[in-house]
Amino acid sequence: MKRVVSFRFMSDETPGPRGAARIHQAAREVLAGRGYSALTMEAVAAAAGVGKSTIYRWWPNKEALLADALAEVFKGEEIPDLGDTRAELRRAVDMTMDNYADAGLAIALPALAADLARHPELLARFREVFLWRKRGNIAAALHRGVDRGDLPATLDTDLIQDLWAGTIMYRRLMTGGPLDDDLAERLVQLAFKV
Amino acid sequence: MKRVVSFRFMSDETPGPRGAARIHQAAREVLAGRGYSALTMEAVAAAAGVGKSTIYRWWPNKEALLADALAEVFKGEEIPDLGDTRAELRRAVDMTMDNYADAGLAIALPALAADLARHPELLARFREVFLWRKRGNIAAALHRGVDRGDLPATLDTDLIQDLWAGTIMYRRLMTGGPLDDDLAERLVQLAFKV
Repeated sequence: MKRVVSFRFMSDETPGPRGAARIHQAAREVLAGRGYSALTMEAVAAAAGVGKSTIYRWWPNKEALLADALAEVFKGEEIPDLGDTRAELRRAVDMTMDNYADAGLAIALPALAADLARHPELLARFREVFLWRKRGNIAAALHRGVDRGDLPATLDTDLIQDLWAGTIMYRRLMTGGPLDDDLAERLVQLAFKV
Repeated sequence: MKRVVSFRFMSDETPGPRGAARIHQAAREVLAGRGYSALTMEAVAAAAGVGKSTIYRWWPNKEALLADALAEVFKGEEIPDLGDTRAELRRAVDMTMDNYADAGLAIALPALAADLARHPELLARFREVFLWRKRGNIAAALHRGVDRGDLPATLDTDLIQDLWAGTIMYRRLMTGGPLDDDLAERLVQLAFKV
C-alpha cells in the first residue's frame, strides 16, 4: 500500500492502488475528452466501470478526485545539482512546460483552484501539491545559481517562477503561441537579468 | 443602433441596446456568482427575466453570449503618446492588470478560448476582441519606446506581453500572489531588459 501516499486528497479509507489508478485514469480521460465542466462523479464512474458510490466512498467531491488524478501526472521533483546553473534552469523550465503542455491540464488547474476556493483545506492541499512542492524544488536550484555567483543575489525566486509558469500557461490557454526551444531559452535567460 | 457595433458575436438580427445590456449584465452576474460551469443559456435567461428563446434568437450558444458580455468590460484601448516611455508602459501593465483583476474574468477567458476551439470562426473573433486589439495597441506604445531609444531595438513585443499578461493571470488563478504596485513596476522594468 506504499504508493497510496501520493493520493493526497482521498479520505482515510483508501482503495487499492489498482482501483485508484483506474479511477484516476478515467478522470483524466473524461477531462481530456469532454472538458472540465463535463467532469462529474457520474461521468468518471461510468468511464471507470465502477459504481458512483464507490467513488464517493473514497473522494468527497469531484474537485478532490480530479486533484488526485492530476497530481499523478504533474511534475514537481527535485532538480539535481548538475554543477551548471544554465542547465539546471533549463530543466526547471522544461518541467514547467511539461506540466502545461496539455491544454486540458492547463485549463483544469486554474478551474480547480477556483472551485476549491470554497474548500480552504483542500485549496491549501492543492497548492501544496501543485505549487509549493515544485516551486520549492525550483527555488533550491535558483539559490544554487546565486551561491555560485551566476545569478544576481537580488533574484526574486517567486517572481521568476511566476514569469515562467505564467507565460507558458498564457500561451497555451490564450494566444496559442509556441511553447518551443526558443521560448525555453529566453525564459532561462530572464533569470540572469531580473 | 450605433452602439450595437461593439456586440461582435451576435447574429445579424440584433436586440436593442437596452435588451442586450440587460442580458450581458445577467451573464456577468451568473458568471461571478456561480462560475463558468454553471453559466447556461437557461440561467442567463432567468437572471435577465427574459425567455430562453429570446436569447437564442440573438446568440447561437453560451460561448458567443459570454464573449459579448465580457468584451463589454474588457479593456484594450489605444495608449496615448505621453512623451514618456515608462509612463506609457505602466499604463499598458495597469490595463492588463485591470482585465485580470477579477477572478471570474480571469477564469472565464481561458475556459471560453478552450470551448471555442470547436468553433474556429468564433475563436478567431474571440482572439481579435480579447487579444489582438489590446496587443496591437500595446505594441504601438512599445514601438514608440524603441523609436525614442528608450527600449532595446531587439525587443520582442509579443514575448513581453506574454510575460506581463501571463504573470498577472497566473498569480490571480494559481498562487493568489499580490497584483500590486510593486509587481506593476517590476513588469514595466522587464521591458527595458529583455
